[in-house]
Amino acid sequence: MERILIDETPNLIGQIVKLQGWVNIRRDHGKLIFIDLRDRSGKIQMVIIPDKEETHKTAKEVRAEYIIEVEGLVKARPGGAKNEKIPTGGVEIEVEKLNIISKPEVELPVDVSAEDLNLNLDTLLDNRTITLRNEKVKAIFRIYAEMISAYARIMKQESFTEIKTPKILNAATEGGANFFKIKYFDKEAYLAQSPQFYKQAGVAIFERVFEVGSVFRAEPHYTTRHVNEYIGLDAEMGFIGNFEEVMAELEKVMAYVMQEVAQKCQGELEMYGAQILPVEKIPRMKLTEALDILDKEYGKKMETVDIDAEGERLICEWVRKNHNCDFVFLTHYPTAIRPFYSMPSPDPQYTETFDLLFMGVEIASGGQRIHDYNHLIASMKKHGLNPEDFKHYLDVFKYGIPPHGGWGLGSERIVQKMLGLGSIKQAILFPRDVKRLTP
Amino acid sequence: MERILIDETPNLIGQIVKLQGWVNIRRDHGKLIFIDLRDRSGKIQMVIIPDKEETHKTAKEVRAEYIIEVEGLVKARPGGAKNEKIPTGGVEIEVEKLNIISKPEVELPVDVSAEDLNLNLDTLLDNRTITLRNEKVKAIFRIYAEMISAYARIMKQESFTEIKTPKILNAATEGGANFFKIKYFDKEAYLAQSPQFYKQAGVAIFERVFEVGSVFRAEPHYTTRHVNEYIGLDAEMGFIGNFEEVMAELEKVMAYVMQEVAQKCQGELEMYGAQILPVEKIPRMKLTEALDILDKEYGKKMETVDIDAEGERLICEWVRKNHNCDFVFLTHYPTAIRPFYSMPSPDPQYTETFDLLFMGVEIASGGQRIHDYNHLIASMKKHGLNPEDFKHYLDVFKYGIPPHGGWGLGSERIVQKMLGLGSIKQAILFPRDVKRLTP
Repeated sequence: MERILIDETPNLIGQIVKLQGWVNIRRDHGKLIFIDLRDRSGKIQMVIIPDKEETHKTAKEVRAEYIIEVEGLVKARPGGAKNEKIPTGGVEIEVEKLNIISKPEVELPVDVSAEDLNLNLDTLLDNRTITLRNEKVKAIFRIYAEMISAYARIMKQESFTEIKTPKILNAATEGGANFFKIKYFDKEAYLAQSPQFYKQAGVAIFERVFEVGSVFRAEPHYTTRHVNEYIGLDAEMGFIGNFEEVMAELEKVMAYVMQEVAQKCQGELEMYGAQILPVEKIPRMKLTEALDILDKEYGKKMETVDIDAEGERLICEWVRKNHNCDFVFLTHYPTAIRPFYSMPSPDPQYTETFDLLFMGVEIASGGQRIHDYNHLIASMKKHGLNPEDFKHYLDVFKYGIPPHGGWGLGSERIVQKMLGLGSIKQAILFPRDVKRLTP
Repeated sequence: MERILIDETPNLIGQIVKLQGWVNIRRDHGKLIFIDLRDRSGKIQMVIIPDKEETHKTAKEVRAEYIIEVEGLVKARPGGAKNEKIPTGGVEIEVEKLNIISKPEVELPVDVSAEDLNLNLDTLLDNRTITLRNEKVKAIFRIYAEMISAYARIMKQESFTEIKTPKILNAATEGGANFFKIKYFDKEAYLAQSPQFYKQAGVAIFERVFEVGSVFRAEPHYTTRHVNEYIGLDAEMGFIGNFEEVMAELEKVMAYVMQEVAQKCQGELEMYGAQILPVEKIPRMKLTEALDILDKEYGKKMETVDIDAEGERLICEWVRKNHNCDFVFLTHYPTAIRPFYSMPSPDPQYTETFDLLFMGVEIASGGQRIHDYNHLIASMKKHGLNPEDFKHYLDVFKYGIPPHGGWGLGSERIVQKMLGLGSIKQAILFPRDVKRLTP
């Protein structure tokens, strides 16, 4: 007999089926044994009656997280006994045969069948290979998978070409210090902090490119929104008239991604009480306007033209209240706090750049880039960089490139905020931070 | 006026359109100037007549790789003047206005408009940001993008969950020596040589997982099929009965990927004279059987039960001749040359593992894994490894995991062989090898 998945059972009432999966929990009611079985498609209740002696004996051995195979009859549950919480709650399996396929050597330190694990972050992450088995924890990564898949689909639809660029670099990009150093044969190399240079090179080849790839940041942060390795959703597009077009494209992308996740992950979102607002027009405001609002509405003053984590949280709160939107574009960041390749605004104190905030946190940075060779060299010098260190990057511009811009999205923050997770680390299967290299 | 793409022009005969793109080549015929314009959608011929004085003057300045914007009339070309080689060969643009958007500072060292660049590998790669502009070179990466996208689609259809696992590890996985070392804050860390351990952990969570991600190998190879950084297409599936099921799944995946590429990249494949055979049943033979064939048919003897690059090439030749198939599974590799986690065969000298060869080269390795905790520990010891170094990995098994297996595919080799490229480096935008960290 071929194994079927649990979610197929409601259509097979009256038939004998074979199932395989994990024992979520076993409950004994007198001589009846109930087992909730879990596979990749869902959960189902099984009942083992004492008449089946051999099967009943094996069922008595079974504990949580045993991996078993059963054959049994799919039966409709009487009205009062239905479990409305799960799609297979209208049926149960009357088990005929039960085999143990594999079992834990020791009892699990965590009850993964709990609706909510309620563990502190370190315990959750220290026991990651176990805690990830919990349905609610697993739901995060179902959503994550849907999200990155939707991102790739919409980018393709918008005629962006998918690229994969090197993560080992010979020079520290963007002139920053926060790079991990590698021993690369007899040389030194660095881990890519962003695919910035390569995606710009991509514009000169394909006009529009996107990448889903690893990003490494050697920043010693201890916050709820930083990790040292994450997956970036990058894009870069040529032949733009201005950076508004980049924001318009990103708006379209986020609208699609949010809609896809809302439609395809209803059950998972419900577990977190998460509601996704449809994305239509994302409000855009200058950073200076945002700072004015923070001052006037919240009495918060920044010392320089910049915004901090609290400011981002508050401005999102304000936008949600006044525009019923979970997103906002802050634009025109000062030249001093943006990378050298940022296109200056007509007032050269500012840049044609933006951050996209979502539910209180920055999820993307982007803008128009300088595309003129000599302009770029001048900007490098202004930022204290030596153009000779950037020969290969400059070649892209030396041989001509159209006006272009793009963005870098942090994939995990999107899911973190969508579900209201306390830390970004909850949205990463096996996160890496200053102290954490395992599991 | 909104810019349109070149491939839309055949439907717009008689209309004035705006185009943007790169000058592929300019030819002057007396006072007529012909420019081949290229954008992400294709190429088109434009003609500038002397009557438009201003436009004609600007057109005279234009050189190869200038980035321009034109407005002009779409005209049908008379029968004899049609260019059957390109989809827009039936039309041309009579240019009204021409603006230079951006231009090279210096002339390009390579004529990117050539049908075939005919450069040696080093020149091709040293000038990568330029040589990638060539249509035939670009075609490789259109195919590559389609291939990895098709892989993700079929994996999703087959109910594999997409995962992203860490590339920074605290321990050298698989006990090998070929790891790049990183300075990770005050610790030492390593770059992932494969997502092996994490995808196995994924089986205990999602049953079926796949990953498209960076793989780093510190092997000092100088061959046409090795690089030090590549994109792995990994998968792992639980509840298998045997490793034949893993091969059957991979067969289904390759059939889909090949079919998608064949359908969606016809033009690109034609440029390389590449023909994709439909994948039906991929022949499977034991490694020992393959060695017998090599001995009998080609007089090639191996000293141990193993196969080398030449052997892989010859056995593929033989399979192509005898089975009309570009793929072959070699199975049952000896325990001694497989990783410790490989499931032994009933004859424990051999393993339930396979390599998938494609057009002469190994593109995937896979098999069934040991899922029993104590069996795994015993196997580690037999391979001279200390189980204490693998605590987090062993936890996955300590708490129970179903029988499972999977594969790791090298994405770039697939495209390399499909197109008959001399080196795998031609199938990577910016390859990394022992000597090459730039561009």
